[in-house]
Amino acid sequence: MRMWCQSCREEYKEKDAGTCKECYEEASETEEELKREIEDLKAKVSFLRLCPPVDPHLPNTNADLLLYGVSESHEEAKSTLTPAVPAHRAVLISRSPVFKAMLETEMEENKSGMIKIYDVSYEVLRSFVKYLYTAEVLLDEQMACDLLILAEKYQVKHLKSFCEKFMTSKVNNENAIASYAFAHQHHAKQLIEAALSSIIENISTLTEREEFKELLERDPRLVVEIYEAYLTRQVNTAEK
Amino acid sequence: MRMWCQSCREEYKEKDAGTCKECYEEASETEEELKREIEDLKAKVSFLRLCPPVDPHLPNTNADLLLYGVSESHEEAKSTLTPAVPAHRAVLISRSPVFKAMLETEMEENKSGMIKIYDVSYEVLRSFVKYLYTAEVLLDEQMACDLLILAEKYQVKHLKSFCEKFMTSKVNNENAIASYAFAHQHHAKQLIEAALSSIIENISTLTEREEFKELLERDPRLVVEIYEAYLTRQVNTAEK
Repeated sequence: MRMWCQSCREEYKEKDAGTCKECYEEASETEEELKREIEDLKAKVSFLRLCPPVDPHLPNTNADLLLYGVSESHEEAKSTLTPAVPAHRAVLISRSPVFKAMLETEMEENKSGMIKIYDVSYEVLRSFVKYLYTAEVLLDEQMACDLLILAEKYQVKHLKSFCEKFMTSKVNNENAIASYAFAHQHHAKQLIEAALSSIIENISTLTEREEFKELLERDPRLVVEIYEAYLTRQVNTAEK
Repeated sequence: MRMWCQSCREEYKEKDAGTCKECYEEASETEEELKREIEDLKAKVSFLRLCPPVDPHLPNTNADLLLYGVSESHEEAKSTLTPAVPAHRAVLISRSPVFKAMLETEMEENKSGMIKIYDVSYEVLRSFVKYLYTAEVLLDEQMACDLLILAEKYQVKHLKSFCEKFMTSKVNNENAIASYAFAHQHHAKQLIEAALSSIIENISTLTEREEFKELLERDPRLVVEIYEAYLTRQVNTAEK
């Protein structure tokens, strides 16, 4: 008797045995079930998405808040506002404990219906609001960086972790030190780990770089952490 | 050499072979990936859920609409309103094309901020609104029935299919005829199929029932459909 794999239909030898028939069938069923669950969850996500009122000039958005990005110019000692991004109190309150506190108390923003956010561009602010409505945003490295900062400020955990995952997937030799410093500043553990691994792998070349010297100047504790991680890894490798 | 199943760890014979090693490993990886996707989607669902402003007496809900259930009493020729269920225009507009049309035009409801829904109890209305905010509701058979009707009226497809699935899972000999008539009335295909199957299986006893005779009186075409399905099944069985 010869054995045929029920999955790829090819003949195989005893030493290449994977599972028995029963477990194969069970696994196929499990996979089907998981796929059905995914379909259900996707339908739920698309049901729960809200249409963001991105354009303040559209009628009937019923938006009861306006958000503005503010950039301060020190030279001219004045600040400039981005165009307004409309939003709904109910949505912002649901998504962020910071907005919740701001909009459920007698704070200035609650009374005026205007929220000013410093050092953020119109584009980033729009993407931020869009994410609060849809849990969707198109990221590049700069946008991920900017949105992570906003997400941390307003405690929008889901967005922060979304940006952090994206940045983690982009860590390389070139940006490892910058990513490491950024991740520390914004308490992004997963990104710290990824950047640290990348730094340790290339430690001999990276320590020669200008950025590394700047990091040492600015925050020597971070450099200590790098060396400690490097030494721990050496010990672990030696033990194996 | 003996073969051990990599999944259940038990020894098996050639004829009980399931998969080769490679396919087993691939399947495990796929399963892990699917599970991760499920986790991500669950987090997205919980991020996108909104807190429904169920109690109109709570401050700071920012609700800009009030929904009322209306029941008409023919005897006393007057109608009574349920307590108000508060809601946000932005949410209702996102979830239902009917509410969207109502609230984006110069209709009475838009101006007054009051929506009256006929023949619905306070409990059902609350559950309906809760679902629009959270995609969650606790169903029993009556609630599924009532919410399906509302979901059809306001074209909330996701809720309709949620209720239909629930009702389909509850079809049995006792409720098959009633389910069948209900499903036809509300264009619930999946439920029609399930009820029809159940009726056909027990056709000899069910045709004797009072309900069946009532159905024949009320809508003879539905009874024709039952007999046609029964005959088709008989022919198919005979051919096999």
